[in-house]
Amino acid sequence: MQTQNEPIQLYYWPTPNGWKISIMLEELGVPYEVRYVNIGAGDQFKPEFLAIAPNNRMPAIIDPEGPGGPISVFESGAILQYLGRKFGKFYPSDERARVAVEEWLFWQVGGLGPMAGQAHHFRNYAPEKIAYGIDRYTNEVNRLYGVMNKRLQENRYLGGEYSIADMAAIGWVKPYKDQGQDIEDFPNLKRWFEELMARPAVAKGLEVGKAEREKLNLAANKDAQSVLFGQRARA
Amino acid sequence: MQTQNEPIQLYYWPTPNGWKISIMLEELGVPYEVRYVNIGAGDQFKPEFLAIAPNNRMPAIIDPEGPGGPISVFESGAILQYLGRKFGKFYPSDERARVAVEEWLFWQVGGLGPMAGQAHHFRNYAPEKIAYGIDRYTNEVNRLYGVMNKRLQENRYLGGEYSIADMAAIGWVKPYKDQGQDIEDFPNLKRWFEELMARPAVAKGLEVGKAEREKLNLAANKDAQSVLFGQRARA
Ligand SMILES: N[C@@H](CCC(=O)N[C@@H](CS)C(=O)NCC(=O)O)C(=O)O
Ligand SMILES: N[C@@H](CCC(=O)N[C@@H](CS)C(=O)NCC(=O)O)C(=O)O
Repeated sequence: MQTQNEPIQLYYWPTPNGWKISIMLEELGVPYEVRYVNIGAGDQFKPEFLAIAPNNRMPAIIDPEGPGGPISVFESGAILQYLGRKFGKFYPSDERARVAVEEWLFWQVGGLGPMAGQAHHFRNYAPEKIAYGIDRYTNEVNRLYGVMNKRLQENRYLGGEYSIADMAAIGWVKPYKDQGQDIEDFPNLKRWFEELMARPAVAKGLEVGKAEREKLNLAANKDAQSVLFGQRARA
Repeated sequence: MQTQNEPIQLYYWPTPNGWKISIMLEELGVPYEVRYVNIGAGDQFKPEFLAIAPNNRMPAIIDPEGPGGPISVFESGAILQYLGRKFGKFYPSDERARVAVEEWLFWQVGGLGPMAGQAHHFRNYAPEKIAYGIDRYTNEVNRLYGVMNKRLQENRYLGGEYSIADMAAIGWVKPYKDQGQDIEDFPNLKRWFEELMARPAVAKGLEVGKAEREKLNLAANKDAQSVLFGQRARA
């Protein structure tokens, strides 16, 4: 595996999207340094961060040993593909195997992630309890769990071998209760979930910044909510 | 460019996610055949379709001339990467350039697409008019348009050169009015939008199946809505 001398800088907050990258870096075993982006305090709008992450969202990385010099990457899916290619792990180079991983990586990024995110919002964070929104996203997450459960009936992992697709999804399944789901309804998903949670690198990745997350306590923190919710285009 | 003798089968319905692939195939100029998946009539639940698209969503493709034999691909982002790699176009192989394209491709798949989709839903399709949902997604799309506008101030295209990232985004900007946005507020986005809409392949890709879309008329079609909305896991 390609060596890494200087640590990768991880711009991070402990959420499902952040965990994808802390898990991947733990799995790779390469040196990295965490730069906390406290999204409840507005760190994501600081010019230094926007210069590498123009969408004002973490995660992002700076790899001082990028191709031909330092490189920054934002979007969790793009970071996973970059790291997977660089180190030649968890992202196959055989084309058929690569496509299978990409299918489930995009499925997570475009489906499970945003829809579970909306379920979290309407169930736990929205100032009003809006039944239509709660039902809409609870149902959609239920559908998506069904899709995963079926996939995992015939496959040990989402993309074939253990891959960046699994690392992308695990942090979004961990809070299944907040999404109104009962994991017992999805036995293959449960088997996969337990297997992944028992991997030391997954456990370590999920621990990064845990205390920060608890301190912020978004569900009860109106100041943080007012930073995060209702954003529009900035001049 | 690699030749394609047998046509690629495109499982398709004329929506922003479907257009991504009709546009890419037109840009590539390779032979393809459209297989309509009428999502308002429930075609996406047919076993033949689920066998290649286990998420019951189009688009999907079958490439009879895949690596070592026929291959199927679902998820629009995965299809774009597959086709871009196969034909060596619109998806650079230089690592720095590739990462830039991937950043904006994932940004579209994980952000613009799902959030504009929710704006469409709450503004045009939901049976009740729910102000909270309308505002939430109209604001978020506004934020995302601001991000694109800023990016396009210094870059002609989202990912550097014209790429699969632009093809992924254009169909989601086209219905900007349905998202409650005024394109005049975003001059660089407008410039990009007009340039892309003037490309013959983009125009052709957006035309594929237009009559089918008009016939279905989802906003007024309760039967189609009851197929599409409120899905949960299937046994
Ligand atoms: N599609 C993006 C989503 C990232 C994202 O939504 N990050 C959230 C936390 S999970 C964030 O940084 N929010 C800050 C904000 O909304 O201002 C990715 O996968 O990287
Ligand atoms: N993340 C998927 C989303 C695809 C998607 O949402 N397709 C919709 C139409 S735009 C669909 O097929 N819906 C059928 C259904 O919901 O049953 C992709 O980009 O391919």
